Parts: sequence; C-alpha cells; structure tokens
Amino acid sequence: MTYTPPRFVTGLTCFICGTTYPYGNIFTCPECGIDGILDVQYDYDSIGKRITPNSLALRGLNHWRYEELLPISSDSVIPHLHIGWTPVYDIPRLAKAVGVQKLFLKDEGRNPTSSFKDRASSIGVLKAAEFGFETIACASTGNAASSLAGLSAAVGLKSYIFVPERAPEPKVTQLLIFGATVLKVQGTYENAFDLCREGCEKFGWYNRNSGTNPFLVEGKKTAGLEIAEQCAAAMPDWVVVSVGDGCTIGGIGKGLQEMKMLGLIDRVPRLLGVQAEGARPIVDAFVSGQDLVPTDTNTIADSIAVGTPRNWRRALWQIEQTHGEMIAVSDEQILEAMRITARLGGVFGEPAGVTGMAGLQLAVERKIIRSHETALVIVTGNGLKDIHSAKQAAGTAISIAPTLDALAKALDTRSKTGA
Amino acid sequence: MTYTPPRFVTGLTCFICGTTYPYGNIFTCPECGIDGILDVQYDYDSIGKRITPNSLALRGLNHWRYEELLPISSDSVIPHLHIGWTPVYDIPRLAKAVGVQKLFLKDEGRNPTSSFKDRASSIGVLKAAEFGFETIACASTGNAASSLAGLSAAVGLKSYIFVPERAPEPKVTQLLIFGATVLKVQGTYENAFDLCREGCEKFGWYNRNSGTNPFLVEGKKTAGLEIAEQCAAAMPDWVVVSVGDGCTIGGIGKGLQEMKMLGLIDRVPRLLGVQAEGARPIVDAFVSGQDLVPTDTNTIADSIAVGTPRNWRRALWQIEQTHGEMIAVSDEQILEAMRITARLGGVFGEPAGVTGMAGLQLAVERKIIRSHETALVIVTGNGLKDIHSAKQAAGTAISIAPTLDALAKALDTRSKTGA
Repeated sequence: MTYTPPRFVTGLTCFICGTTYPYGNIFTCPECGIDGILDVQYDYDSIGKRITPNSLALRGLNHWRYEELLPISSDSVIPHLHIGWTPVYDIPRLAKAVGVQKLFLKDEGRNPTSSFKDRASSIGVLKAAEFGFETIACASTGNAASSLAGLSAAVGLKSYIFVPERAPEPKVTQLLIFGATVLKVQGTYENAFDLCREGCEKFGWYNRNSGTNPFLVEGKKTAGLEIAEQCAAAMPDWVVVSVGDGCTIGGIGKGLQEMKMLGLIDRVPRLLGVQAEGARPIVDAFVSGQDLVPTDTNTIADSIAVGTPRNWRRALWQIEQTHGEMIAVSDEQILEAMRITARLGGVFGEPAGVTGMAGLQLAVERKIIRSHETALVIVTGNGLKDIHSAKQAAGTAISIAPTLDALAKALDTRSKTGA
Repeated sequence: MTYTPPRFVTGLTCFICGTTYPYGNIFTCPECGIDGILDVQYDYDSIGKRITPNSLALRGLNHWRYEELLPISSDSVIPHLHIGWTPVYDIPRLAKAVGVQKLFLKDEGRNPTSSFKDRASSIGVLKAAEFGFETIACASTGNAASSLAGLSAAVGLKSYIFVPERAPEPKVTQLLIFGATVLKVQGTYENAFDLCREGCEKFGWYNRNSGTNPFLVEGKKTAGLEIAEQCAAAMPDWVVVSVGDGCTIGGIGKGLQEMKMLGLIDRVPRLLGVQAEGARPIVDAFVSGQDLVPTDTNTIADSIAVGTPRNWRRALWQIEQTHGEMIAVSDEQILEAMRITARLGGVFGEPAGVTGMAGLQLAVERKIIRSHETALVIVTGNGLKDIHSAKQAAGTAISIAPTLDALAKALDTRSKTGA
C-alpha cells in the first residue's frame, strides 16, 4: 500500500551544514556524509492551531496524543501496546535526602517492555511498514533491542537483533521470548552496531538504530512533551537523564523546546546529562569543547556503555540550548542511587536507569544544582532487567529454620549488629 | 493519630456462618475460627449515588478512583506510586491463534512493582498505618512480597518478608533493593506462611497475608472494577485468571459483581480459574464438590504454587456465582502460553502470569469455551520476574563473529534448518 506522508513534517535538516532535504527514507546527510545529524522539521504554525491545552485534554493518555508532532503517516496502524504517559512522582523524602527543594521521578520502566526505548521503537516499526520493509533490525546493548522485539511482535514484523556479548541475560531472554532472531556478536557494542548496519544494507532490512535513524529521536522526544504537560503547574528547574548515545537527552530536549514553541510552557528546564565514569566520551567533549573522541567502556550501567556515541552532537546542542550541564558518576554512586531510588522513592531502576539520580546527587554535592532548586529525574529502565547488578546494591536475605526461635534469634542478631 | 473509619463500610461478614462483625482490625471469624472467610460489606445504596459513569469520568486513572468501594479511611495518605488502570488490549492475531472470537489481555505487569499484587499491598500499607502498626509483614512466593516491599518503601513503613527457599532470585533481589528485611525460610510456602503469622502475633506486626487479611482482597477487586469500565462496550463472555491462594479470582469476581450491582454493567462474565497441574487443590475441590485437601506443589509457576490455599472458599464461591469453570494446565502448556502471549500479543508474562492464557487454550480445546465466545485474560505478572523459566520457553541466540560473512552463513544455516 502507499502511505500518505506525515502531514506536518516539512523536511529533514542537517545539524551541521544546515541543508534541508525533503521527507523520505534518509539516514545520512548527503552533503556531510555524517550520521545522526538529520533533524525532522515540522510546520509548527499549523500544529499550534491543533495542539492546545483544550485539544490535549480530550486525547488518550499515551504518546500518540502528540500525533501532529510525530513523523507518522495517517495510514499507519498504531501498535496496540500502551506507550508513554508514564507516571511522574513528587517525592519529598527523596528530595530531602538528595538536598533539593523538590524532586520528581518519571518512571519509564512502566513502558510495555519496561524501558524508555519503547517510545523510539514504536516509531521505528511504523516507519519500517511505511517504507515497505518486512524486516527491521537493530544493534543494542539491550533495551532498544527488547523494545524493538516487543513492538515488532505486536505489529507482526520480523526482527533481527544484534547484541554485544556482554548484554545481560534477562535482556537477551526478553528478545527471544518475543520471537526475535538474536545475533550475539563476538565483540563490543560498536562491532554489533557496524555489523547491523552492514546487514541492513546487504539484506534490505530497515535500520532501527537510533544513532543514525532520524525518526527514532522523535519518539524519544515524547517524554519531553509529556514532562511539559505533567509538570506544567510546577516546571522543574532541571531535567536529569542518563546519556549513552546522546539520542535520549537530545529527544527530551527537543520535546521540551517544542512545547515552549507551541506556548504550552513558558520556560524550558535546564538539562543535566549524566554518563558513567567508565563511558564518558560525551562528558569529555562537553568539557573540552572539542569533537568527541571514542573511548573504551567499563561500567555496570550497560545500557549507556557506549564508547562511540552517534548522537553526541545532538546531545551537546540540546544541552547547550538550555544552559545545561554534564557530569559523570562512578559505579558505586550508581549503586547508591539504585538503593535510595528504591528505598525512598519506591521505584526500582536498572543501573543506567538510576544514573540520572546518581548525577543529581553529585551535582548537588558540587553545587551545580542548588538546594532551592527543583529537579525531575528520568528513570529510564526497570531494575528487573539487570538483577545481577541490583544484587550488588541490594544486600542479602537472612536464612532461617521455620521456627519462632530461629526468627527471634535472627532479629536479635540483626538488631545487635545493625546489619 | 486517629483515623475516621472507612465511610461506606458497614461491617465484615463471615462467608460460612453469616455473622456480621463491626468494622475493625479482625482476621478470623470468632464464631467459626477459620481464616480467609470474612468479607467486607458496603452501603451500596449510598455508593450508587456517588459512583456513576459521569462521576467516574472525572476521576484519576488509577485504582483509587473507586475510593467508596475500598476499605480505606479518608485520613489515609495515598501512596504516590501509580497503581491500577492497567491497559486492556484487543488482539485479533492472538484471538485467531487461540480460536476465540475476541481476545483481550489485561497486562498487570504494568503495575509499579510489575505484578497484580500491588493492588492488594497498597491497601495493606494503609491499613497498617490506620491500625497503628509501624511494621508490616507477609509471607509470599514472591510477588506479594516485592509489592509489599515497594509500597512500604513508598510510604516509609518497615517491612519483614518471609519467603520460601524456592523463591526466584530476581524476586528476592527486588525485596532487598526496596529495603525490606527478608527472611528466607528453610521450607515451603506453607512454612513461611505459618512463621510469618507467628511472628506477627509475637512481635506486633501487621499481617499483610492476603489469605487471612480481609482487606487485601478489596484491593484485588479493583481489577474487576476496571474490567467493567474498560470493557463496558464489549463485555467479554469469560474472564480468565490464574489461581494460587484463591484470593485474586475471588477479588476480581467481587469487583465485577459490584459493578453489576451498581448498574454500571448489565452482566458479569463467567470466571475461568486456572491452576497449574502441579498445584491444583482448588481445581480438585471444584471438581469433587468436597472441602479442599492440601497437596504438595511442583510447577514452574511459582507464584501460584500454593498447596494449602487459604481463600479457596472465596474462589469457589465467586466462580460458582458466575457459572464459571476451573481447569489445570501443565508446565509445558504454560511455556507455550508464554511464547504466544509474547510473540502474538507483545506481552511478556511470568509463568503464573500466563497460566490464564494456557487455561484459555485448553478450555477452547475442550470446548468449555466456544469459538464464538470472547475472553479477557489477566496477565498477572511481568516475565522479567522469572527469567530462569522464560529461558526454557525462549530459544537461544546465535553467536557469530563480527563479520558480514559470519552473518550471511548464520542466516543461511537458519533458513535451511528452520531453526
């Protein structure tokens, strides 16, 4: 079938050379030859007449409520899985512990496959169908993959997924159960990424890699659009999120900016991008002001262990737009953030999921964020995805015989040792 | 502080002897001496004036929207975590594969700690606070426990959790990360259950065990209340759910019945209760018409591996009210249900989570459910909770070197072997 092009998309503009290309299945700027730098442009004047507080009030509470701001055809069949409009929690106990005036958590682990990436994958599977592909592929450290597998299953698309050897088993199992063909590449994320791209070219698959595919970031931006609506009454001073490839923070920044452009909010929060110390090439580029230098990676936050990010330019551009900051945190700080997010917030995040929280704590310590300020932290993925890491943060159970005596003794020991 | 009693609760009535007791912290019928048989009664005439389609349309999309039908005090502070109003999906491909006219999935894995049990725990932590307890305890094969740990963390209550030795590690880790004290009891679920009750009596903890605590089932019933609203336009002929203790199906049945009583639906779907072959005491009692005989348990569906269910009377009573049925499925059928639920529905459920789906398949095979009928299956928990079992259903990844040649060879082998 032929799909009507997305009604409000006016073209794709290159970040670097400024050239605008007509809408279509395009990944790389023909002028610059660089990936991850094409940005979808919209007719905001027309959209502004349709997206208003009144019209939004009547729409479904999922990320398709922003259809005019998404690069999707009106002929596309929307997947049945409920995506987006994840809860935002105002948690005074956590704010107090961290030392800010107000702290909100947005729990992206509540998406269908338990991570933020469902926002992007849902766009990916629609674009694949629209451009006439029967198979979609991606390389991922895990969440993008499980998300693509789940969304492909939901719409009946075939999926090939390239994962690096170190991908945690729960994430690989999640792919397989959804019926994806999983290729475990003997090497790093970068090896998996390159092989996926070559495979797409050779075998005619649609490439869901959000580092290069310009449409995926549009799905990610819906988190920013939602924050604008959900926090309209008390817009936080900071929005904090973990950074791997750069596409997530880039998308969230774009969404917030669009809502300001449409007049739904009057200021955009500052962005704090947080990387793990063991995978901090974007932080280094932010600090040096130079082009990004690829690095090795070594962190428990596998979902953001990206040594050669494809979207660092987009990330830095969005962060600078908001006079934002970047910071890197240690694995120990990530584990501590996992504990306080769960114990004071009731939200269990995976390591990369709580890296934002670790960054907020460090930013407060370093007075980058002040005690009178407010922050929203995005928890990008559910802790059940990486139980192995969680075990390092969690402590241990007390094994006892099934008797009241054994119980009394165990409690007594515990209260004496404080363990 | 003193809490105003729940406004619309008129008392607690014993299922067996019919005696009604005034509202209060009561677990066991003083007349009969049996647990799990007290049922919370409401003033439905007054509630009917307040719960109407118009009033509901203005309320938040979470399970507190039914506040008049919950045994909670107006002084209670509602936990910040978003509970309930989980999505209902209409999935034609899955309906076709199973052989029914329409098939809906309600994905309870979308609750805060990724299972149905959050509905009950959210009531439990409020009751503990209302009755003046500082500590809450439960025995659980996993989900009730992780849910209690998460909800306790959210409201700042201390939690002691008794788990049997066989509880899967991801579930135990989830408890620990939320800061619960976890007591791993050397024995079965029944040993853990008994020790928890003794501990509550001895140390003055509030008991969250849904088998005995009469208020917990009221939280579970919100899934039934939601189904009535979410499916009002096309009420399914059957509602299908896995059965362990009996409290979940009992609650769902009560919720549906209440919605009929309030005039929000005009008929109650028939209930299909599904147990695992390796833990089927309630199915046996259903078939024999005799009192329940406790059994040993042996099934991968650990969340419903209950040999001595406390709520079997409530389960059977509710099933009979709807002219419902019960059925038992093998572990193989559960693994197959896990695959089709994920591959055709895009929903990854744990073994007990998809036991309902396995039961639906078997019921269609046995012509208990006919091809012209419609069904809603409740997926009670997220598959990430038990990756070990999922691996048995999932198949394996293909390990390859990071070269296009290796990829081409792997795909070729795969297409030849059909693997």
